[in-house]
Formats: sequence, C-alpha cells, structure tokens
Amino acid sequence: MRAEILSIGTELLLGHITDTNAAYLAQQCAPLGVDVFYISQVGDNLDRLTETLRRARDRSELVIMTGGLGPTEDDLSREAISAVLGETPQVDPALETQLRAFFAGRGIRMPERNIKQAWVIPSVTPLPNPVGTAPGWWAERDGKIIVAMPGVPSEMTRMWEYEVAPRLASRAGATLYTRILRVAGLGESTVEERLGDLIHTPNPTLATYAKRDAVDVRITAKAATEEDARSLVEAMEARVRSALGTHIFGIDSDTPQSVALRLLIERGLTLGTMESCTGGLLASLITDTPGGSASYRGGIVSYATDVKAAEGVPQETLDTYGVISVETARALAQTVCNRLTTDVGVGITGVAGPDEQEGKPVGTVHIAVVSGERISDTSQRFSGGRQEIKWRAAITALNLLRLHLLRENEEHD
Amino acid sequence: MRAEILSIGTELLLGHITDTNAAYLAQQCAPLGVDVFYISQVGDNLDRLTETLRRARDRSELVIMTGGLGPTEDDLSREAISAVLGETPQVDPALETQLRAFFAGRGIRMPERNIKQAWVIPSVTPLPNPVGTAPGWWAERDGKIIVAMPGVPSEMTRMWEYEVAPRLASRAGATLYTRILRVAGLGESTVEERLGDLIHTPNPTLATYAKRDAVDVRITAKAATEEDARSLVEAMEARVRSALGTHIFGIDSDTPQSVALRLLIERGLTLGTMESCTGGLLASLITDTPGGSASYRGGIVSYATDVKAAEGVPQETLDTYGVISVETARALAQTVCNRLTTDVGVGITGVAGPDEQEGKPVGTVHIAVVSGERISDTSQRFSGGRQEIKWRAAITALNLLRLHLLRENEEHD
Repeated sequence: MRAEILSIGTELLLGHITDTNAAYLAQQCAPLGVDVFYISQVGDNLDRLTETLRRARDRSELVIMTGGLGPTEDDLSREAISAVLGETPQVDPALETQLRAFFAGRGIRMPERNIKQAWVIPSVTPLPNPVGTAPGWWAERDGKIIVAMPGVPSEMTRMWEYEVAPRLASRAGATLYTRILRVAGLGESTVEERLGDLIHTPNPTLATYAKRDAVDVRITAKAATEEDARSLVEAMEARVRSALGTHIFGIDSDTPQSVALRLLIERGLTLGTMESCTGGLLASLITDTPGGSASYRGGIVSYATDVKAAEGVPQETLDTYGVISVETARALAQTVCNRLTTDVGVGITGVAGPDEQEGKPVGTVHIAVVSGERISDTSQRFSGGRQEIKWRAAITALNLLRLHLLRENEEHD
Repeated sequence: MRAEILSIGTELLLGHITDTNAAYLAQQCAPLGVDVFYISQVGDNLDRLTETLRRARDRSELVIMTGGLGPTEDDLSREAISAVLGETPQVDPALETQLRAFFAGRGIRMPERNIKQAWVIPSVTPLPNPVGTAPGWWAERDGKIIVAMPGVPSEMTRMWEYEVAPRLASRAGATLYTRILRVAGLGESTVEERLGDLIHTPNPTLATYAKRDAVDVRITAKAATEEDARSLVEAMEARVRSALGTHIFGIDSDTPQSVALRLLIERGLTLGTMESCTGGLLASLITDTPGGSASYRGGIVSYATDVKAAEGVPQETLDTYGVISVETARALAQTVCNRLTTDVGVGITGVAGPDEQEGKPVGTVHIAVVSGERISDTSQRFSGGRQEIKWRAAITALNLLRLHLLRENEEHD
C-alpha cells in the first residue's frame, strides 16, 4: 500500500516543534507493508491544507494525517477532509455525549466551540480517543483511506497502536505482534554487535532504538494469526535473551524504576536514597512510579559537603577517601539505611560539573547499594553536560539496585 | 519572501531519522522575514524529487533543500535541480581542485564517483563547505532561488550560518529582534486576556506559548537596524510588564530555578528543601542549575509519614492537621531550616495520586517557604497524572520562593 504522511500545524512551519510524529509513523508503516513515499508539514491554512490533502489522496492509497483536530478555528483537518471528499460535517449524537461526559468528568462545562470535535461525515468512522477530547477520523471511500489523528504525541501513538495499526494490519491479510525488550548497561552498538545476524532476519524483524532510559530491542513478527505472530516473537525473544542475559531488565512499558520497585515489593524490602551529585533526581524517578510508597521510605540530598557529615557520614571516610570516592558512596548508602531505618540503601556521589572537584574530572560518579552486609558498587565516568550526567548516574543506580536485588535472590535460592 | 523546505532522503521516509534540519531551518527563516508555507520529506527517487521540487519552485520564491548532495547514485539533488531548470551539469575545474585537495589532505585517493560533487550548472553559485566534501548550490534564475545544502546537520548549519543566511538577510533589507518574557503563576489564556489588544499589534508582534515551566510571551520587532528593532521591542516590553507585573520572572533562557537561585545568591542566603509528594523533584530541578551549590545545601525527601516525624516534624502538627495540610508544609519548611542549618526552607506536602490520602483528593498540594519569622504559603489543587502534579507543585514552589525573596527585599528597602 502506497502511503503519505501529513503533519498539520503552523508551529511546525515556524520550527517551534520538531515533527517527531512523522518519524514515528514512518517507522510504524514499514512492518505493516505500507510504503511511505512522501511526508509533508502544512500550516493551519484551509486552502493549502486542502490542496495538499487532495494531491496526497490522488497519488496514494492511504493518507495519514496528524494534528488539526483541536477545537479552535485554526484546527482545520476535519474541514479539509470534508472539502476533499465533498461531504458535509454533522454532529454525531454519540460522540457529543462522550465529549460532554469528558468535560463533566473534570467538573467543567464544555466550551461550545468544542462541538466540532463531535463532527462526522458519511465516509467517516470515528476512532476512540480515551486520553483526549478529539476522536480520530477513518475516512474511507473509493478504495482510498484518509486517517486523521490528534497531533499530541501521547494521544496519537495510542490511537495508532489501538485503532489504526490493527485496521491496516487486517487489510494486509496479516497480523503483527510486537514486543520490546528493554536493555540496561550496554550501548546501542554493543547491543547490535551481540545480536549479530539476528538483526537481518526478515520475520520477525529486529530493530534497536536508543532511548533515554534504555536501549530498546523491538521484535516484530507478521503472521496469519496473532497467535502465530506471538510464537514467532517468543522464539526470537529467547534467542535475544540468551545474547543479552540480565542486561534485559524489562519489556514494553517497564522502566528502570518500575522494575526496581517491583523487585523490592516482591521481597518486602524498604528503600532509602542518599544523593550528592544527582541532587534528588534518583528520588524523583523512584517516586514517579505509583505504588512506590510501600517500599520507598525517603531520601536525603546532601548537596553541601558538611551536610553529609552532619547527616551521619563518618568524617573519617570523607577525609581519608574524599567526597568523590566509592568509599563515600558506600557510606552514603549505609548512612541512609541507618537514618531512615530501611533494608536497602543507595548512595551516589560524583562530579556533575561544570567544574572538577577534588581534582576528579567532570562526569566521575560512584554509586553503591547496601543491604545488611551485602554491598554492590560501581565507578563510572559519564560524558555530556550536567543534566545528562545526573540522568545517567540515576539510571545506572537503578540498574545497580536491580542487579543487587536479583543476586540476593540467587543467594537465597 | 515565500519559502518552502525540502528534506531529501529515503531514511526520513523509513523513520530511521527525525528531520531536525527542517525544524532548524524553519526557526531560522522567521527572523529573516522568510515565510515558510510548506515542508516536505522526499525519498531518493529522481521522478518524485523532481516533481516535488518543480511544484515548490512554482509556488514559492525560495526553496531550501537539504540532503542528496553525497557522491552516490542515490544522491539526486543536483540532478533534480538541473532537470527543473533545464540546464546540464558540468565539472567546475576550481571545485574539482578543491575536492581532490580535500581527499589528498586526508591521505586518500578520491573515488571517481565523487566527481559529481564538483558539478555546477550555469545558474549555480557554489557554496563553500569547509567541513565536508559537498559544496552547496545557490541556484538563482527568473527571480526564484533554490538553495541545496548537505543533509549532515553540522555541515548544513555551518553553511546556513556563513553562506545562506547572510545572502537572504541582505535581500530582506530588515532586521528582526526578539525577546521572550517568561511568566509564572498564570495560565496561557489568562495571560492573553491580560494582554488584550496588544496581541494584535502588527509590529512588534506578540505571541504566547505554553511551555512546561512557564508561559512565554515572545515579542518580535522588524526594523531597518537592530537598534531600531530593539527599541520597538523594549517599548512593548514595558507595556507587557505593566500588564503582567511580577508574574514575569525572567527573560529568554531564564528558568524558574535559575531565577530563584540567583536571588538567593544575590542575598547571600542558603536554602534547604523538604519534600513529600514531589519526592525529590524540587531538589533535582534546583541542582540542574550550575553554581547552585553556593546556596543550596540539600534536602530531605520524607516519603513515608513516620519519616517526617523521625526527621523532626512535630508529631502534634501531623496529628492535629494531618499530613496533607498547610500547617505540615510550614513545619516541613521549618524543619529543614533547623536540620540543615539554612536561612530559607521550602516544604511541600500533597497527594500525587493515583489514590486520595486522608480524604484529600488527588492533586491537593500545600507549599510553604520559611525564612526566620517570615512565612509564605499556598494551597493548590492540580489536575493531571502523577508526574504532572509533581511537576506543577515543584514549579509553583520555585515561584513561591521567588516571590518570598522579592518581598523580603521590599521589606528591607
């Protein structure tokens, strides 16, 4: 199937935002057997949008639009599709009910201009959007399809995944099944090297993506039924797991923090953190995960050096080894266990920059995890700016915590 | 000048890379008085590229291309421009000499297929590329311009900055000057309401943008000289400031945390934080700013309720008012001043969700700032998910801290 992607919004033409939606959709199309021949960004202008959409529909079987489904006068995707198909929009009573319920649920009256989000035309099947107010449009006529989705990436990706991709897959006469394996502690090129020839198999396909908190290995299989596709994915998953071992920390929507917290909760252990260079980022990541309060008791951000001693880090350790040392990281982890009465403590010390400290270069980070007599630690040198170093240190600490808890399990087994 | 951006490369249509070049160029065009009406991504296919380029040149005075200038058969930008203009490429002796010198300088023989990088056509002025092998093309005829630059971002941005932007600026005969005023504590629609008719002035233009940490008011003026443009911006800035007052916390690259830290440093004050529902996010934001260690001594994340009491929050306060109360927020702020010996303390308590707590609904947040006898506090109800509530609470705390420090100044004056 020959396809074309249209991203709508004047903010794209002003460069205020980068069109990440188009890249996401382009990536998604290939495994569905959909060939993308053009991508365009058009502003919030009805003439130019209609002209571009008409040409796209003339030369492609499928046009995938994002943006322009909001409630304002500048949101013109519905108007352009109606113009191209020569159909007149009308309010759909079922959509109107849903829309008013959405606002009522938030305790606010629906602004009347929002009513256009309940429009349909005869060729349109609306696509549900449980995370926003704008339903999508699946407009099909004369063997050609126009799909319009919201521009907000979280709404768009959800609609793609649950509504659009399955419909397209069913036309392709095949089903796709995808699983993402999330990898910690290895760079993308090392992951590819370890995967070797698996990367080049035609079905399932394997692709790696460097994400901020992990390297993702995405396995996608195509088969006549979902069951068959899933079997293909699982056979490949076993091979990937044997290549990457415990570097794989989770699947799909798992995060380094959700996996570490799950291990703590399963083992009935409590956690505390004591951070210097990461300045509270580790605590904040852990508390991003709901349900963490069962395990995570709290943390100390000992930013100034004398605060470390005042909070219980032995002055002797600081004097003998320096603040930037693995010994201090261990002492921080031990101190927080004592101070907050936790089973497990994580300590982080290092140089986030921009200036070196104690003669240690920017990016030097020491991390320790302590539980009872057991200690795990790591010393690293991260590159990048201040926020990047904080981020990498916090993610590395979460991975060290996970491995520490896994090893504890092995020792107990 | 009406313009259009074309990004060339099949990797864009496969979603292997995101088109950051287009966003960069779009951003660069506005201040030059160049209006971008379309952006497109096209693959390495001569027919489709030529067709797209022809249409772009028909409807725009300026077409800015990136990519397709490499030495391979898939690099077709030169061929497409030549086809559209009906001119025949020939090797330019001066370019050939430079090209061979580039390879010789690296100790390698030039692959013969690279010779197409020395091509020109009669309408083309080549643009130097000291950081790569592909010169750009400035193709001008019949009052229309096609500019072709390499797709590698570092080569493209250099060529834009040194070769293309200066040529375009000299044609525009005008200079732009922009200033961003950053606004805290008001929603975008309230900001627009307060600005009233100022929003509709033609020069300078005013636009509002809801950013994650502020609402930005962007003032842009066009004039014959930079000095004139700046005067226009400053006159408008004064009017905006009188409409928004101390809600404006900074300009351009200021952040809520950098401004609060600057005030602390100016006054020689130290800071500590004690967080419950934000779980370390406030500490992490503060420590994102370099140079903060002069003022920020550290923080306590008292996530579990009994940790609050153990760290020094009076049990009586917790029992009488509950954990989710403005009294507890004040006690947290006071406790951290005592515990970490700081001049100023910030305390945050609330319900990040997903479940309510003490019968208080999700999103309830109490924040207090304490310094000596002075207390500022605020109680809010934020909407959104867990991470959104944490984020809004931390940003609101930074704004409360700023206003607290500003008022201190007034009292001392």
